[in-house]
Amino acid sequence: MKTTPVKGTNDYLPSQTKLRDYVQRKILEVYESCGFERITTPVIEDMENLNKSEGGENLNLMFKIMKRGDKLTEALDSYKTSGKEDLADLGLRYDLTLPLTRFYANNRNSLASPFKVIQIDRSFRAERPQRGRLREFIQCDIDILGSTSKNCEIELIDTTAKALLNVGISDFKIRINDRRILKNLILAAGFKAEDSDSVCISFDKADKIGMEGVKAELLEKGFDSAACEKFVEMMSRKPFTLDDAASYLEDKEPVESVRNIIEKVRAVNDGRYAIEYDCSLVRGQGYYTGTVFEIESLEFGGSVGGGGRYDNLIGKFIGENVPAVGFSIGFERIVCILNDNNFKIPDSKKKLAIIYPADSVTDAIRIADGYRKEYDVTLIEKIKKLGKLFGKLEESGYYGCRIIDESEEIKIFEK
Amino acid sequence: MKTTPVKGTNDYLPSQTKLRDYVQRKILEVYESCGFERITTPVIEDMENLNKSEGGENLNLMFKIMKRGDKLTEALDSYKTSGKEDLADLGLRYDLTLPLTRFYANNRNSLASPFKVIQIDRSFRAERPQRGRLREFIQCDIDILGSTSKNCEIELIDTTAKALLNVGISDFKIRINDRRILKNLILAAGFKAEDSDSVCISFDKADKIGMEGVKAELLEKGFDSAACEKFVEMMSRKPFTLDDAASYLEDKEPVESVRNIIEKVRAVNDGRYAIEYDCSLVRGQGYYTGTVFEIESLEFGGSVGGGGRYDNLIGKFIGENVPAVGFSIGFERIVCILNDNNFKIPDSKKKLAIIYPADSVTDAIRIADGYRKEYDVTLIEKIKKLGKLFGKLEESGYYGCRIIDESEEIKIFEK
Repeated sequence: MKTTPVKGTNDYLPSQTKLRDYVQRKILEVYESCGFERITTPVIEDMENLNKSEGGENLNLMFKIMKRGDKLTEALDSYKTSGKEDLADLGLRYDLTLPLTRFYANNRNSLASPFKVIQIDRSFRAERPQRGRLREFIQCDIDILGSTSKNCEIELIDTTAKALLNVGISDFKIRINDRRILKNLILAAGFKAEDSDSVCISFDKADKIGMEGVKAELLEKGFDSAACEKFVEMMSRKPFTLDDAASYLEDKEPVESVRNIIEKVRAVNDGRYAIEYDCSLVRGQGYYTGTVFEIESLEFGGSVGGGGRYDNLIGKFIGENVPAVGFSIGFERIVCILNDNNFKIPDSKKKLAIIYPADSVTDAIRIADGYRKEYDVTLIEKIKKLGKLFGKLEESGYYGCRIIDESEEIKIFEK
Repeated sequence: MKTTPVKGTNDYLPSQTKLRDYVQRKILEVYESCGFERITTPVIEDMENLNKSEGGENLNLMFKIMKRGDKLTEALDSYKTSGKEDLADLGLRYDLTLPLTRFYANNRNSLASPFKVIQIDRSFRAERPQRGRLREFIQCDIDILGSTSKNCEIELIDTTAKALLNVGISDFKIRINDRRILKNLILAAGFKAEDSDSVCISFDKADKIGMEGVKAELLEKGFDSAACEKFVEMMSRKPFTLDDAASYLEDKEPVESVRNIIEKVRAVNDGRYAIEYDCSLVRGQGYYTGTVFEIESLEFGGSVGGGGRYDNLIGKFIGENVPAVGFSIGFERIVCILNDNNFKIPDSKKKLAIIYPADSVTDAIRIADGYRKEYDVTLIEKIKKLGKLFGKLEESGYYGCRIIDESEEIKIFEK
């Protein structure tokens, strides 16, 4: 037997599961108190739906499930004779957005409008395993479907920030941009509209390779050198403010939209976290159409969440215009951070052991029940080497024990 | 796009998800308060492990995940040239017992002994879809690993019964048997030891086809007619008590074991539920070695949980003797029952809507925050047709709303 879990997945011990449950509960608590409602969808989705989705690179990372029974026999025969490989009919979802789209199409008559939805659940990607990149991982998403109001962005940012604070992550900054600003800046520099995505991909690397590196890459891609020059000159200004952006653009609406979101978030957050315009924020997904945002942990570095507006994605699938915007918390990253910092779950029930002679189980259960409001109580049959048992219990985080045939008092462990 | 979820799986709407979360939470609450600890394992497992497991019929119902990249190319080539079909390297787990076994082997040095473990999670079986038979479903298991004490059975029954009571399922009966009693009764009737499993399979159908039907099936299978006659005569006695069982058996230990469990459970359950010896309780799984039990809902009919002792299963996998006993609650069945009975979640936070003019989102957030300790509060932009909005909110279970530019009072809906 292979005893380790499948590559890129984890077994979670009781203490780890307790932390993961706690973080999910604290996030869900805030999401729900802010009027979002949780749904659940299956982890398996139809292969055709997955293939048609805008998953980009993720489509190559999909776990595909083989057909079964006669359909498999048929598909294998067909492969043997024609070389046509069509052996999978299902796949594991690679994110929660495709399932949400399908869910919305399937159930929209029963849903509130706008629909404020929570998804906290597993996704799967066959990534090359590396620290913090799991093949099975939890995502914590909120989305608002069916509204174009910019107040949605404000609600999502406010709610997500409250969720992080509720979990114990406090020192973070929100960076915000608008895809339309970036696109128009690229046009203003002299690129063609169809080059926009490719320019974005290079620009996204600015914090790693510097603006000179971006320029080199753009030139290498064969873009007009005057446009490359101009773009790099424009975007190298530090800081690059919303006013700077506005100075290049004819349509000021996207700039005003970002400014409005920033102002209003600042008006309600009592200075608990920063929110700033970041001209270089791209976010990978091709489906974003407007606002994009990301949360950066200042204490621990790196992104702990992100999202944006994707007004066309659902419509493409269901043939009806459904504006949407979402914000996702990087659950696995948060748990990593809390673990690295030896985070202790506050106010969790203490653990107590009732040690009993093997023939007194009924007494033990009755006595244990008396303590169960206050403690999580386990029953342990009495053994001879009590000292060793005490050591083990203490090590496992037990608060104390009571040996029912010896004492009516709880023996409290030192630690 | 196919908008329905994959055959045999479900989308769960907010109200359904709320109930499912509630039931899981209430079960987990009891499990934890009784000293069990939750672990989490991946839903994907190594194909070889799955194939080697004692899954019986479930192995034919497995969702298999295709190899990826070079390994897939290789496997496809090999299939084309040699006809050897080895295209899957992973599979979705069909229960939580194989993952638990692997988890135990992988982590036993970090685990308490005996290890009292909770698993509440998804499993997958490609069953023919029918009411109550899902292809993706939640199981709620507790197991005790590493102890042969009969007090484990008492703890599991007591804990499981408390969990059901905590969820709101109260009118149930626990039926208990011991595989060793059944085996010895079969021997006492004159069957051979190797016929035991086959006789059990027929006997398991007694409540559907009657004892005459069982006899017909046994004869049809070609067993010695005197043995068939004797067995049916023996087992037709109503009631068939533990004393009846003991009268046929030389080794009385299994009978005394069941008697002891029943007595002690009765001594602690304050008459809240019945527990009875049932000579006809078989339980399908081949891996059970001793006690088996099942919970029957008297109010709604049918089994809502079951389990038993499986002392050899883990050892077979990890080459070390690890006695084990487990009890599983039929989560999907419980949710079905609660739904059919229009169960209302007690003490859940009421829902409140804050209705605000679109340009007052910051005021709306501040006002909403003031209500969030007591209510789950959603923000809704003010529209002209307020009457229609009220109707929708009321229908969606909202307690009331406050229109912030019109009133400082909550308007409570009638319902």
